[in-house]
Amino acid sequence: MRILRTAAEARAASRAWKREGLRVALVPTMGYLHEGHLSLVRLARARAGRVVVSIFVNPAQFGPAEDLDRYPRDLARDTALCEEAGVDALFCPDAGEVYPPGYATYVTVEGALTAGLCGARRPGHFRGVATVVAKLFAMVEPDAAAFGQKDAQQVAVVRRMTADLNLPVELLVGPTVRETDGLALSSRNACLTPAERAQAPVLKRALDAAAARFEAGERSAAELLSAAGTALAAAPLARPDYVDLVDAETLEPAGPALVRPALLALAVYFGATRLIDNAVLTPSFGSC
Amino acid sequence: MRILRTAAEARAASRAWKREGLRVALVPTMGYLHEGHLSLVRLARARAGRVVVSIFVNPAQFGPAEDLDRYPRDLARDTALCEEAGVDALFCPDAGEVYPPGYATYVTVEGALTAGLCGARRPGHFRGVATVVAKLFAMVEPDAAAFGQKDAQQVAVVRRMTADLNLPVELLVGPTVRETDGLALSSRNACLTPAERAQAPVLKRALDAAAARFEAGERSAAELLSAAGTALAAAPLARPDYVDLVDAETLEPAGPALVRPALLALAVYFGATRLIDNAVLTPSFGSC
Repeated sequence: MRILRTAAEARAASRAWKREGLRVALVPTMGYLHEGHLSLVRLARARAGRVVVSIFVNPAQFGPAEDLDRYPRDLARDTALCEEAGVDALFCPDAGEVYPPGYATYVTVEGALTAGLCGARRPGHFRGVATVVAKLFAMVEPDAAAFGQKDAQQVAVVRRMTADLNLPVELLVGPTVRETDGLALSSRNACLTPAERAQAPVLKRALDAAAARFEAGERSAAELLSAAGTALAAAPLARPDYVDLVDAETLEPAGPALVRPALLALAVYFGATRLIDNAVLTPSFGSC
Repeated sequence: MRILRTAAEARAASRAWKREGLRVALVPTMGYLHEGHLSLVRLARARAGRVVVSIFVNPAQFGPAEDLDRYPRDLARDTALCEEAGVDALFCPDAGEVYPPGYATYVTVEGALTAGLCGARRPGHFRGVATVVAKLFAMVEPDAAAFGQKDAQQVAVVRRMTADLNLPVELLVGPTVRETDGLALSSRNACLTPAERAQAPVLKRALDAAAARFEAGERSAAELLSAAGTALAAAPLARPDYVDLVDAETLEPAGPALVRPALLALAVYFGATRLIDNAVLTPSFGSC
């Protein structure tokens, strides 16, 4: 496995593979890899002859009061996991390589895709995400790139940005990978205390509570949100940041009654650690 | 000469040429071509086996009160000029191809490069420029792209954006081309009345007046600006929008005394038509 540290090295490696006729897929990560990331590596591998994993804890997507410094890091372990997973190259630029002195350019996705959910609670977050993804796409020049559905709003923002800026990258979206108790895998799970960890599966239980009501025919957004909220309230360490229902495609607020696929999205604090999770609720139409 | 109308056609043409080992250069324009554009075509031709001229009057770089609707257009004449100039492809997408419904992504260059000069007078202008240039680079995938020094701030913004977003495009900058009376070529010159046209060379005279003082040893920014302002005042139809001296590289305000290369930049209205021009003043150091 190659270790690439500069944009020039990443581009040279990618172009050399393409000259051999190989497709290149990128899995952008912030490191501290878990099975969710590795599932994206497998998804990427299925669509490309060469897989690059990038590891970059992107300062531009953290607010000043957020957990950039606390974000878990373990490059030695990440390297071993990528090697085991058959990754062809690990791209781990430092912050000065990505944002050199005088850096001034940002990519923003405006409107409903970034107005709500995490976009409302983390000002500038998706500007940082869109910017670093545009840069990683330019540095690695991948044919495809894999993202996890756990970060549903990020997927929507990256999809819009990729289409809008005419970037020739196929997006692959992998399903959320969970612990056996339902907790969505996240590098931030490592920050939970044992007591917090024990209650963290409440996010999935809240999604399941709303989904069960939905499956039973409930279409009232207020009722579905109430079901999720009631489930969350059962975990005393959980402090909800938001519980919201939005259109699954546009991320605009869902109407009072669901008629189109909706995204039920949660962000919940446990102490200083903020976890997110989501589920798509898709109204089915009778076979008449 | 090929006429390309979609991003897919532009990319396919460019990639086919590259597979043949040819370099591709792009000359982005808003059409109504003049000798300034054609000089950029020659500059591009000298550095690449294939030259693409894009013609797109970019709505995103015009403010609501600006001259988008009045901007001169003549695609038949432009096509003939490009054909004569040996251009390999004309890329003329329509607005719906560049900004389809739901479009939401913008590229901004923040800070001093866009804070002053035209950036201060035309809010959103350079956001539109950076966005469309990033898109054109992604659609055409050129190895090089040519811009005119007449739009000095645009050159600085595009240079910053290209470096910051890791875009693999070499920038070529051509000198300002002028009428024999000194007026910088601009598509907007066609909007001048005969009386305005007769006075329009005052922009160059103002630059020359300041440059003459500079060559004579004057280093006071106030004195140099005063020389330019006095020259402009001799043309009664000229209404200066700004006359400014900034650092030639950072575009930060020049200090009270010039010690580094400075950009003297002007924007002047004649009626509703706004013309710009500039000169770089470079302090020389004695050969001691």
